[in-house]
Amino acid sequence: MPIDLRFDATDVALFADLYELTVSAVFFERGMNETAAFELGLRRMPPNRGYMIAAGIERVVEALEDVRFDPAAIEHLQSLKLFKDDFLDFLAGLRFTGSVRALREGAIFFAGEPIVEVSAPLIEAQIVETLLLNQVGFATMVATKAARCVSAANGRRLVDFGPRRAQGADAPLVAARASYLAGFNGTASIAAGRRYGIPVYGTMSHSFVMAHDRELKAFEDFAAVFPRLSTLLVDTYDSEAGIHNAARIGQRMREQGVKLSGIRLDSGDLRDLALRGRRILDQAGLSDVPIFASGNLDEYRIAELLAGGAPIDAFGVGTALAVSEDAPAGDFYYKLVEYRDEPRMKLSAGKASTPGRKQVFRAHNDKGMPYADLVGLVDEGTVTVAREFRPPPASVSPMLETQMESGRRVMPRPALEDLRARTAEDLRQLDARLKSLRKPPEFPVKTTAALNAMIIGEKLKAERRQE
Amino acid sequence: MPIDLRFDATDVALFADLYELTVSAVFFERGMNETAAFELGLRRMPPNRGYMIAAGIERVVEALEDVRFDPAAIEHLQSLKLFKDDFLDFLAGLRFTGSVRALREGAIFFAGEPIVEVSAPLIEAQIVETLLLNQVGFATMVATKAARCVSAANGRRLVDFGPRRAQGADAPLVAARASYLAGFNGTASIAAGRRYGIPVYGTMSHSFVMAHDRELKAFEDFAAVFPRLSTLLVDTYDSEAGIHNAARIGQRMREQGVKLSGIRLDSGDLRDLALRGRRILDQAGLSDVPIFASGNLDEYRIAELLAGGAPIDAFGVGTALAVSEDAPAGDFYYKLVEYRDEPRMKLSAGKASTPGRKQVFRAHNDKGMPYADLVGLVDEGTVTVAREFRPPPASVSPMLETQMESGRRVMPRPALEDLRARTAEDLRQLDARLKSLRKPPEFPVKTTAALNAMIIGEKLKAERRQE
Repeated sequence: MPIDLRFDATDVALFADLYELTVSAVFFERGMNETAAFELGLRRMPPNRGYMIAAGIERVVEALEDVRFDPAAIEHLQSLKLFKDDFLDFLAGLRFTGSVRALREGAIFFAGEPIVEVSAPLIEAQIVETLLLNQVGFATMVATKAARCVSAANGRRLVDFGPRRAQGADAPLVAARASYLAGFNGTASIAAGRRYGIPVYGTMSHSFVMAHDRELKAFEDFAAVFPRLSTLLVDTYDSEAGIHNAARIGQRMREQGVKLSGIRLDSGDLRDLALRGRRILDQAGLSDVPIFASGNLDEYRIAELLAGGAPIDAFGVGTALAVSEDAPAGDFYYKLVEYRDEPRMKLSAGKASTPGRKQVFRAHNDKGMPYADLVGLVDEGTVTVAREFRPPPASVSPMLETQMESGRRVMPRPALEDLRARTAEDLRQLDARLKSLRKPPEFPVKTTAALNAMIIGEKLKAERRQE
Repeated sequence: MPIDLRFDATDVALFADLYELTVSAVFFERGMNETAAFELGLRRMPPNRGYMIAAGIERVVEALEDVRFDPAAIEHLQSLKLFKDDFLDFLAGLRFTGSVRALREGAIFFAGEPIVEVSAPLIEAQIVETLLLNQVGFATMVATKAARCVSAANGRRLVDFGPRRAQGADAPLVAARASYLAGFNGTASIAAGRRYGIPVYGTMSHSFVMAHDRELKAFEDFAAVFPRLSTLLVDTYDSEAGIHNAARIGQRMREQGVKLSGIRLDSGDLRDLALRGRRILDQAGLSDVPIFASGNLDEYRIAELLAGGAPIDAFGVGTALAVSEDAPAGDFYYKLVEYRDEPRMKLSAGKASTPGRKQVFRAHNDKGMPYADLVGLVDEGTVTVAREFRPPPASVSPMLETQMESGRRVMPRPALEDLRARTAEDLRQLDARLKSLRKPPEFPVKTTAALNAMIIGEKLKAERRQE
């Protein structure tokens, strides 16, 4: 019997909201299971975001390759007394046989653009709705938050300290991966380090210092056992006295030819303490010992500390990263855009959808900097679309790539390190104004003439569906 | 090979932050593994919260009963090349042998009070830090958010629609359970329904309506297959026209002696649409057909809709609940309060801890309403502490209960339904002012004279630990 914290194959199969299975049962009964295309995207940019980093796609592709209702899942559905046996038999044999076009994991995108498109028999595409929204939504919010911290830290090292604040047992894994993708240097989570090969970092706990009768003895003990991990937490009692104690240890270590790894500040006025700490360490001849800071940090606070001249070399970001604190959820949608080769459109007030299968075309200037996107139809040619950009682009890239066909991955699984390097490069080329932490300008996202024409026609058709 | 979404026993074992294992390795090497007490609590109330609902405790107790480093976990730790073999052997044999005193799952508490106290050999208590903070923190934030929605809904039904917005694969399970505990009527999540026996609800997807050529046909199909789940989603195109179509279906169903389950509004001006919808349904002789509303709802919006006279009978709450949107993480701590029978105290600026093992004493007036808490020492008698309350209480309850001893649960596992009923009763007895959605008053939480004396003495001792 698995303990409650574990999340197993049956949970994955039953991750759906009830309605995904009830509407599927009706589709099944009515013989409606032709090819449908669903689009996952973001309705509007979260506050203060000038760009988004797509994430969660690799996990979703893997889940789709393996999606199946195991016997325990079928047995549970049977127990609900809602579904007929022929539908349950159908579910028991169901595999994902569709295609997925998606942004590269780590790609930059903006509101109003498809991130993932699923084309599959209607029922297959419908039952994975919650799974896709849940996985892509959260990972994307964290990757974006992390990229903002990376901008703010301006080259200083960043570590994910969020597992204790994350929402549930899976979130630390998602957050560690997404933040590493976006440029963090590692995570505190051993489980995430194991699963994704991410570097794992840690300093020491307050309880470690408190369990010793003397702070100095605690520092000595730790440095003796883990000289290479000897970042000493100095704020258990008085931070300044703690820094002096750490400096004493650092000097003793140096006499033995070992370098103190750093000191960590975790409370109080971090700017002031970092300035004092730097002075104390420098005066002790420990100018190569870095200062690590943590404690309610986010991109805004990191930028403020560095603008104030705080000599901090590395930051641990916990809560703000793990829950994407100022924007814990994005307004993601997963909507039917085509069924039986016909575009479909929803008109709901304030939540209208855009019909048809699409491609996102990104225009770059001669320096490789993206300056506008056009969302067009899937079969529009890049050359044709390029003519619609003003000013004319140096190059245009189609952003959605086919990642699955007939239920199988079509490209080798990309290495996280490679995705991370490409994300760093994309962020380097991005217009610096979009990276403003507050009120960035809006990146121009428009629709192509062909998609515009389709929207107008489909709106009329959609209105008639209520007659 | 488990797919990436699954969270298995090795993940549970390695849920710790790296520092929990490095400091434990030092403790091990130095022979420091005597009994330690750690306290988990909340430093300050999240914005607009007048009370908190404790949750996640049952899951933690279960995890503690089963915590162990399996061979895969040990192998991974070995691969990090940080730990000596004798420590890894020790971890391989480690079980949780300690005690847990905690609030009842669903109990009301306030900032500055212990929620969980773990007493165990130092290393056992240290390595579960991240696990406890992660599980109790999120579940508590969601349960509290849910209780606020329950207050706002004032008797209307509430369903958790959050799984698609939740942060990762585990969060929907935690959120469904915590919100049900706090008074929700059920969840959209099939997986959560299965795991916790929570009622599962659902209506229909926009894609269901869109895949049909006519909205009316979609409604007909659905009502034919699931007459008892026939809550028709009316906002895919024009909501008012959709309500008229739903009313036609409702009338036809009635002719066949079946009742339409409801209509669901999901966008637009919900108050206006509910008023119109009620009128349309009533005029069609369907005054017993309820109106269900969803779409960016939270406790504030629910209260506003009902104050505005919106005739809404049930609410689906998604994002705001699933991520506890206005307070996605609380400032929870897990701190050493005693080692080798000696109190321990941390002085960090703004994050000082309170030493010693404790009890929370709650004073009730003669109507059973709690009006003040005193945090005292674990061995203080209720009768003695009762004398410290002004005005004198009609009764005083000690809030922390022993839930585990020697690593085993001491009470039978409580049924979720029973916990839910007790939470409802606690909320009923709570001072209504504390349930204000905005700027509630602060519930008086003070420390007993005995704890005060200990704090003063320990502060002096702690200061000397840096000499």
